[in-house]
Amino acid sequence: MQFDKNKVKSLNDPRLISSEQIFDGHILQLYVNQLKLENGAIVEREIIHHLPAVCILATDEDKVVLVKQFRPAVVADIYEIPAGILDFQSESLEQAIDGAKRELEEETGYQAEQWQEVNSFYVSPGYLDEKITLFHATGLNKVENPLPQDENENVTIHEFTKADIRQMMSQGKIVDVKTLYALQYWLAQ
Amino acid sequence: MQFDKNKVKSLNDPRLISSEQIFDGHILQLYVNQLKLENGAIVEREIIHHLPAVCILATDEDKVVLVKQFRPAVVADIYEIPAGILDFQSESLEQAIDGAKRELEEETGYQAEQWQEVNSFYVSPGYLDEKITLFHATGLNKVENPLPQDENENVTIHEFTKADIRQMMSQGKIVDVKTLYALQYWLAQ
Repeated sequence: MQFDKNKVKSLNDPRLISSEQIFDGHILQLYVNQLKLENGAIVEREIIHHLPAVCILATDEDKVVLVKQFRPAVVADIYEIPAGILDFQSESLEQAIDGAKRELEEETGYQAEQWQEVNSFYVSPGYLDEKITLFHATGLNKVENPLPQDENENVTIHEFTKADIRQMMSQGKIVDVKTLYALQYWLAQ
Repeated sequence: MQFDKNKVKSLNDPRLISSEQIFDGHILQLYVNQLKLENGAIVEREIIHHLPAVCILATDEDKVVLVKQFRPAVVADIYEIPAGILDFQSESLEQAIDGAKRELEEETGYQAEQWQEVNSFYVSPGYLDEKITLFHATGLNKVENPLPQDENENVTIHEFTKADIRQMMSQGKIVDVKTLYALQYWLAQ
């Protein structure tokens, strides 16, 4: 896709002295940047630019909705909270909520009455600028004719109680960090 | 560096039909892989291979040790728990603990008496195989002559109470997801 370079933070670093773009893909770009540090040292950094994303902790009383899907990067079926990439570089909260509502309905068939922004975070700020906004969605209702799932996603839907989640976490069955954080947040409520 | 392709999970996916290596860097590799899904569709996936890492929740009673450093990918100084890349592809727990002990001492000047593995997790399993192992280190002692910090890192050390952390999290001052998860885990204890 065409990324707007003004929105690539690492290209607007005052310490940047040169940047080589290695790859321009559908969901990410790769740069090798040279920076001049305060101590005068010149260092090279491999930097990934990735679109922002949203994820949703969808709960109702003692129930949370997780999805399970095959992830080719790690070659495993893993449990995650519903999530999706925003197909634009904006950091507008309004657009993020719209994206989160669409992702929740597409992946789980649920709509939610209440939407609360919990937090925004980087997933690996050492070399990657992907920022995810986490929403807590409550008051869940199954939609009769939900938005269709992406036909290549093959996502299955699973519902668990707090007791289930405590057990799954202690057994190492949750291996995605945004999901661990969101569930830990829910358990503390 | 030379990565061992047998340890790149996405290259050992039974659904893989072709793979093009785009980049071979110091800390990461980039591949564009074609996969044949169960429904017969052929899809292209951009996949990052990254070395495994460790991170450390270092606490003593009502104190946690965080580090603050400039992160060029996001062009900001951010608080994080101490962390570091393992400079090999092994997933051995013994090597991970050794790496975590070294990182804690280099970044903070602390050694710890007790080390407990909390969890291992992927940071963005949709396209990235980086796996981080979180340790909880307690019984902290300042070392007289600690391992030297990487001269280009410029890390500062900060200590906070649980009350400080609750306030910082509610104000959006913690923006790194492994740190949010580890702190939420600590607050729940």
